[in-house]
Amino acid sequence: MPEPVKIHQLGPKRFFCPFADDLHASLKLARFKSDDDCVPLHLTHYDGRPPADQVFFQIAGPRREIFFDPSSTRAGIVTCGGLCPGLNNVIRSIFLELHYHYQVPSILGFQYGYHGLNPASGYPPIELEKSVVSDIHESGGSILGTSRGPQDPRVMVDYLKSLGVCILFTIGGDGTQRGALAIHDEARRQDYPLAVVGVPKTIDNDIQFVSRTFGFTTAVADARDVIDRAHNEARAVINGVGLVKLMGRDSGFIAASAALASGEVNYVLIPEIAFHLDGPNGLLAVLNERLSRKRHAVIVAAEGAGQNLISSAGTLKDASGNLVHADIGTFLRDRIRAHFAALNTPINVRYIDPSYIIRGQRANTEDAVLCDRLARSAAHAAMAGKSGLIIGFLHDRFIHVPIEMATRGRKKVEPSGSLWNAVLASTGQPLSLLNAG
Amino acid sequence: MPEPVKIHQLGPKRFFCPFADDLHASLKLARFKSDDDCVPLHLTHYDGRPPADQVFFQIAGPRREIFFDPSSTRAGIVTCGGLCPGLNNVIRSIFLELHYHYQVPSILGFQYGYHGLNPASGYPPIELEKSVVSDIHESGGSILGTSRGPQDPRVMVDYLKSLGVCILFTIGGDGTQRGALAIHDEARRQDYPLAVVGVPKTIDNDIQFVSRTFGFTTAVADARDVIDRAHNEARAVINGVGLVKLMGRDSGFIAASAALASGEVNYVLIPEIAFHLDGPNGLLAVLNERLSRKRHAVIVAAEGAGQNLISSAGTLKDASGNLVHADIGTFLRDRIRAHFAALNTPINVRYIDPSYIIRGQRANTEDAVLCDRLARSAAHAAMAGKSGLIIGFLHDRFIHVPIEMATRGRKKVEPSGSLWNAVLASTGQPLSLLNAG
Amino acid sequence: MPEPVKIHQLGPKRFFCPFADDLHASLKLARFKSDDDCVPLHLTHYDGRPPADQVFFQIAGPRREIFFDPSSTRAGIVTCGGLCPGLNNVIRSIFLELHYHYQVPSILGFQYGYHGLNPASGYPPIELEKSVVSDIHESGGSILGTSRGPQDPRVMVDYLKSLGVCILFTIGGDGTQRGALAIHDEARRQDYPLAVVGVPKTIDNDIQFVSRTFGFTTAVADARDVIDRAHNEARAVINGVGLVKLMGRDSGFIAASAALASGEVNYVLIPEIAFHLDGPNGLLAVLNERLSRKRHAVIVAAEGAGQNLISSAGTLKDASGNLVHADIGTFLRDRIRAHFAALNTPINVRYIDPSYIIRGQRANTEDAVLCDRLARSAAHAAMAGKSGLIIGFLHDRFIHVPIEMATRGRKKVEPSGSLWNAVLASTGQPLSLLNAG
Amino acid sequence: MPEPVKIHQLGPKRFFCPFADDLHASLKLARFKSDDDCVPLHLTHYDGRPPADQVFFQIAGPRREIFFDPSSTRAGIVTCGGLCPGLNNVIRSIFLELHYHYQVPSILGFQYGYHGLNPASGYPPIELEKSVVSDIHESGGSILGTSRGPQDPRVMVDYLKSLGVCILFTIGGDGTQRGALAIHDEARRQDYPLAVVGVPKTIDNDIQFVSRTFGFTTAVADARDVIDRAHNEARAVINGVGLVKLMGRDSGFIAASAALASGEVNYVLIPEIAFHLDGPNGLLAVLNERLSRKRHAVIVAAEGAGQNLISSAGTLKDASGNLVHADIGTFLRDRIRAHFAALNTPINVRYIDPSYIIRGQRANTEDAVLCDRLARSAAHAAMAGKSGLIIGFLHDRFIHVPIEMATRGRKKVEPSGSLWNAVLASTGQPLSLLNAG
Repeated sequence: MPEPVKIHQLGPKRFFCPFADDLHASLKLARFKSDDDCVPLHLTHYDGRPPADQVFFQIAGPRREIFFDPSSTRAGIVTCGGLCPGLNNVIRSIFLELHYHYQVPSILGFQYGYHGLNPASGYPPIELEKSVVSDIHESGGSILGTSRGPQDPRVMVDYLKSLGVCILFTIGGDGTQRGALAIHDEARRQDYPLAVVGVPKTIDNDIQFVSRTFGFTTAVADARDVIDRAHNEARAVINGVGLVKLMGRDSGFIAASAALASGEVNYVLIPEIAFHLDGPNGLLAVLNERLSRKRHAVIVAAEGAGQNLISSAGTLKDASGNLVHADIGTFLRDRIRAHFAALNTPINVRYIDPSYIIRGQRANTEDAVLCDRLARSAAHAAMAGKSGLIIGFLHDRFIHVPIEMATRGRKKVEPSGSLWNAVLASTGQPLSLLNAG
Repeated sequence: MPEPVKIHQLGPKRFFCPFADDLHASLKLARFKSDDDCVPLHLTHYDGRPPADQVFFQIAGPRREIFFDPSSTRAGIVTCGGLCPGLNNVIRSIFLELHYHYQVPSILGFQYGYHGLNPASGYPPIELEKSVVSDIHESGGSILGTSRGPQDPRVMVDYLKSLGVCILFTIGGDGTQRGALAIHDEARRQDYPLAVVGVPKTIDNDIQFVSRTFGFTTAVADARDVIDRAHNEARAVINGVGLVKLMGRDSGFIAASAALASGEVNYVLIPEIAFHLDGPNGLLAVLNERLSRKRHAVIVAAEGAGQNLISSAGTLKDASGNLVHADIGTFLRDRIRAHFAALNTPINVRYIDPSYIIRGQRANTEDAVLCDRLARSAAHAAMAGKSGLIIGFLHDRFIHVPIEMATRGRKKVEPSGSLWNAVLASTGQPLSLLNAG
Repeated sequence: MPEPVKIHQLGPKRFFCPFADDLHASLKLARFKSDDDCVPLHLTHYDGRPPADQVFFQIAGPRREIFFDPSSTRAGIVTCGGLCPGLNNVIRSIFLELHYHYQVPSILGFQYGYHGLNPASGYPPIELEKSVVSDIHESGGSILGTSRGPQDPRVMVDYLKSLGVCILFTIGGDGTQRGALAIHDEARRQDYPLAVVGVPKTIDNDIQFVSRTFGFTTAVADARDVIDRAHNEARAVINGVGLVKLMGRDSGFIAASAALASGEVNYVLIPEIAFHLDGPNGLLAVLNERLSRKRHAVIVAAEGAGQNLISSAGTLKDASGNLVHADIGTFLRDRIRAHFAALNTPINVRYIDPSYIIRGQRANTEDAVLCDRLARSAAHAAMAGKSGLIIGFLHDRFIHVPIEMATRGRKKVEPSGSLWNAVLASTGQPLSLLNAG
Repeated sequence: MPEPVKIHQLGPKRFFCPFADDLHASLKLARFKSDDDCVPLHLTHYDGRPPADQVFFQIAGPRREIFFDPSSTRAGIVTCGGLCPGLNNVIRSIFLELHYHYQVPSILGFQYGYHGLNPASGYPPIELEKSVVSDIHESGGSILGTSRGPQDPRVMVDYLKSLGVCILFTIGGDGTQRGALAIHDEARRQDYPLAVVGVPKTIDNDIQFVSRTFGFTTAVADARDVIDRAHNEARAVINGVGLVKLMGRDSGFIAASAALASGEVNYVLIPEIAFHLDGPNGLLAVLNERLSRKRHAVIVAAEGAGQNLISSAGTLKDASGNLVHADIGTFLRDRIRAHFAALNTPINVRYIDPSYIIRGQRANTEDAVLCDRLARSAAHAAMAGKSGLIIGFLHDRFIHVPIEMATRGRKKVEPSGSLWNAVLASTGQPLSLLNAG
């Protein structure tokens, strides 16, 4: 019998879910999940053999018995790191679920990321209300503001205690969730019954055990539009090269998906797969050959692609502790211009870097639905007294994943998987270009 | 060892996939799938117990050994039934995969659905070419045209034989795929080695073993916009009622998802769940109560909802053999108006039926990606000599499903599942309204 | 020397515009307008001859000397009639101009049209504030709500007096502005120094002396999208007819402009130009001939088109006193179906009526700019003590037009003008079809 | 009697407009324009006095008598300079007007700007056909391609003669139209009856006697979206500064209009109005003051703004002969960062330069209508035998303007006009900031 991955559970569950009434039961509505309801991580039976190293995850959702007494619960929400479409949707749906269904009386919004969890920052939390959150899902950004970088866990737990906050939702990426785990650990150390539940946020879609993160489809849709404009620019001039840098520090999901949706891209460069720049199979030679035949080309590069080619790469880190990548976009632009200048071939490179345009966008419909369900799953997990986890999304199901496990690595585009194969099929880019590992 | 559901396989595979070269192998790219690679249908282990009645499906994708000799293959494509965003994307990607990767020399487009497979129709097939399909994914509709209703399988197979077509892609819904099965059966009877591969199309998202059909997210996005307009209309007047009828003959996925994305809907009515119209718990009474408090309301009804309430329902069928539903939209509009007229309460009902606006839309980015991958999976299945199947999409994987199995029932919104529970949470609609089964 | 059309001016101007400082003067910024600055109505010199019946209008804009003391002014805003994209933009910009530049301390929003100007309605006015109006331009609808129909001018003026409101902005169409004039007249009768300034609102773009009303370009853009979907539907089936009914009670500007933008329309029917339905030159015969050649057609009808053809037309009026048109859309749909049924020719009519979808839309960028400038012009006129006027928009200039003059007739599509000629050129519709006057 | 500005007219008009039939006359449709129909340039009567220096322009439109025999006419179209939304619409509508209404048998598309008018370029013209242009208005870019820079007029006229082209439409900006005038002059010198008609294209909207150029409203709409994203970024972080550089080499129309539409901009910097960067009234000090109060700010700079501040400015020219501006965007970004670094105040600057994203966009609905009418006006002018002119657009009328006159200066944002006053009102930016002239 499969044993789902263990999730930290606060004390005994002493209360009943307030919407666990007879009517629900009679309608078989709101089927409560048991902590033993679970789904497997691996699905594919290669050549019919069951997957090795199988792992099972708890299914998220409302529990009939919960840990916190809703009537005396105060929750807090914090958003960290870069903007991502959907932040306001998540904030709103957490609020609505707690407020209307659990009837939690007080929900605080901490300002400017973990800064706002340090009382010294001077940015006190906002008391969220229906009128405040009512229409926020119509706008990009985050009404709470955001910031990068950690704060001292002890300071933060002390502050949460002083405010009487017993549930904390941390919306952010890897660094944020590691910070959430530090808060969870510190609360355990202090024996303070705090539930810390992470909602994974990464526009790059690179969090493990989350098949699709919120904001990702919005980003891909916007990226596709940008690629289409670059294509229009490229084919309108002699030897036009549309070069688009897209988000993707470690994983090329946005670049791959947007190229696929556009259907107009000739070369996709992602961090997972090294490529040649020079030499007979290199991008410059391949591009030259294409321009002589077709007079235009479109290149999409994820920001983490080709770092090995740039001498300055690999030294800087940002406030979240992420490696700051050397800029592959301007590097390629300059190398392409120099190459063709040396060949005395006039070309027109149109370089576009739409990062901030995309990050500040509001969530599209798909992401709006995803955010709503993700947020409600987080609310259920927290009310049930689970802590130190993120809400994952696997095989169309919301699941509980320990933070420690989720942040152990990153999700990558699989070179032999169907997404990358579809990209190769769609672009027709030569395999020899990529044989650089 | 799991045995995947059997798919009809034409003769022995005698050829090698043309892109099965050493370079691919060395790069571990384009990993070929074996016919024994498979995924389970059921994932959830309730209370930790393995699912009963487990079924496994073959994974779609390129096979190293194939049945047809690409250099002498002629394929055909036909689109049937109502419009759906993405039809042109599917046509284009089937063409591109066959043309560029398998180097199939001739691909025909049959016009106006199965009509075009009957030579008596007077609409000869179009020889597809790169220049014809190049930009069609930018437009809604179907460049091949479409129609409803069947044709004689014998006539169609004779025509395909006379044209030398040995692969037929049938893009359409339940009725279309049953027609495809009839063609497949007739070809078997005549011992003509024809591969019939269906690409499931239903804007309602109600095909079994397909977690998301193409066009669905586009439809939901457009539906959400319409709901938002209805909400604006409703709240701008005293006792404003925005009433939106959405597609969904047997399944309420569009209504449920669009309501969830909008976050402004008060009542969602779907075919799967009966509701009261009259009486103290009925929609009219509940609406009256809400208007007296809030002065506006938004109602979303799937077209198949509440058929039991309409005396004229259940008698007509369309050319595809689908039951023609009585119009729940105008029925509700008129009943609501009559109810409040009787109460002498002036109200303003804004009724919107956006069906044709949505069906003619082009595919959004998510659907563009889905269509591309679906189409290429269909091309791989056909070249490998599989027939009598549709391409399914389960747990983020493309699979092979026998037509007979896929058309045995319809996918429904699960009343106890997380989608419907999210709708109940988002709308706050009273359960007593729905307790009408 | 031209004499601009006279505008009612309250008492002597006794105050200075608060932003009339030296810095402005030195920068030549905020050039104040004189009441004698004016523009001619007629521009075209046919065969070089000056226009006959020339009329001049005062140019709108800030006046150096104003009538009201900003520090003790209370203003009110009311929106009436059907929704139109941009209502919230106008409300917001009137507020911002009065609040920030004139530093008017109190601005009320009356609810639900003229209903809210009757204290008996039970809907008291809202005190507008920066936080209330800050983001409303991002949403369609009207935050004040709206209604149709008049109220007793004496009741309304008494209420305004009791509230201390000395400026009233009336945002609405012909009926609304006639109501505004009644309020203006009543205030004169009572010798109450009230400035009534109308902001013309008609999605149909049919107000005289207003070359483009706000919401119109948004409506045309949405209408064009709908036409494109209808075109996709029509050409996807055999004998497909896309029939779109668009707004335009008395004037066909939306139908003409949207058809022109789409470039896919075959027949445009507008109220200004009668057309034949039956007979050899009639729409039915012409359509039959086209379908036999091209197998599809797109028809766009303004709601006021072809009223002479419908026996039931011309009897009903709505609460605003507008004639309720017989439904040309369903009439044409049914007549077309019957005609081809009689001919035994199967056709597929897709009928779309997007009215409520369009009216609830938010303002597009062009309309956002127009609304802002219109609203600020209204604020300037009111502060200067002008009353009984609307803000017109002629030859890219904002002007003052007496309500009495503006409501004397309606703006129409000129049959010999360049817009209609462009439509004829774009559609190629036979002139004989239209020779029905 | 006013004398309209003279337009060069080829020989006597010897033919009748093919659509000048009796039916038109009886319907008063397609009213032909006389060469003496004209409109005045100046409208405003300041203090009631008629404008000084009045000028009148011929009204564009079909002429009853024309110069060219349609049945033996061959026309050519060329697009030059940077991309602009609507290029394909103009190409399509010129084609449709000539093909369907004048029944001109041959219309060539020259490739890659004036390059394609030099036979040595190796890019022969394309014979345009209905099937080629049918759907091009749905896409951005130019199907003909474009380039910068002139060619020898003698070579071009010789080539046009050898091809039998007697009408040339030149779609482009100032430089392009000067080139068109050189072609016109050379044809006169050679006594070759060539009609050269320019369609003015400038995304900056800075051509004289053209109140709105095509592509401008599309650009403003896209620019507004970008500003909204920058606003979301800025207000989501502590001391967030959204800095957007927009197109506008010499004129700030896009920056001013987009800022007005957005309603979220704090500082608009345009080429027409100098601003202080340093000092107590300078942008840096003003920004510092605002950040300390509000914690975020949005700045929009037209690319030609603040050139006096940048030492490297004013030396380079591009292939079209336009001055290459020093990059005000990166200059401001770096100066702002340095200023606050020196103050030890952490800030977050989000810099966005969306130029290429906007230029490659397709035309929005307003621009689609404008392009259609502009293109048809150009076709009428050319068929009537007019040459050396551009089609202007003044007071909602299409007019004929001699190229020499149109290119004599540039249209600018008027510092004392209503657009800039609206910007000042909307942003509230201090006048002292701008008092730098």
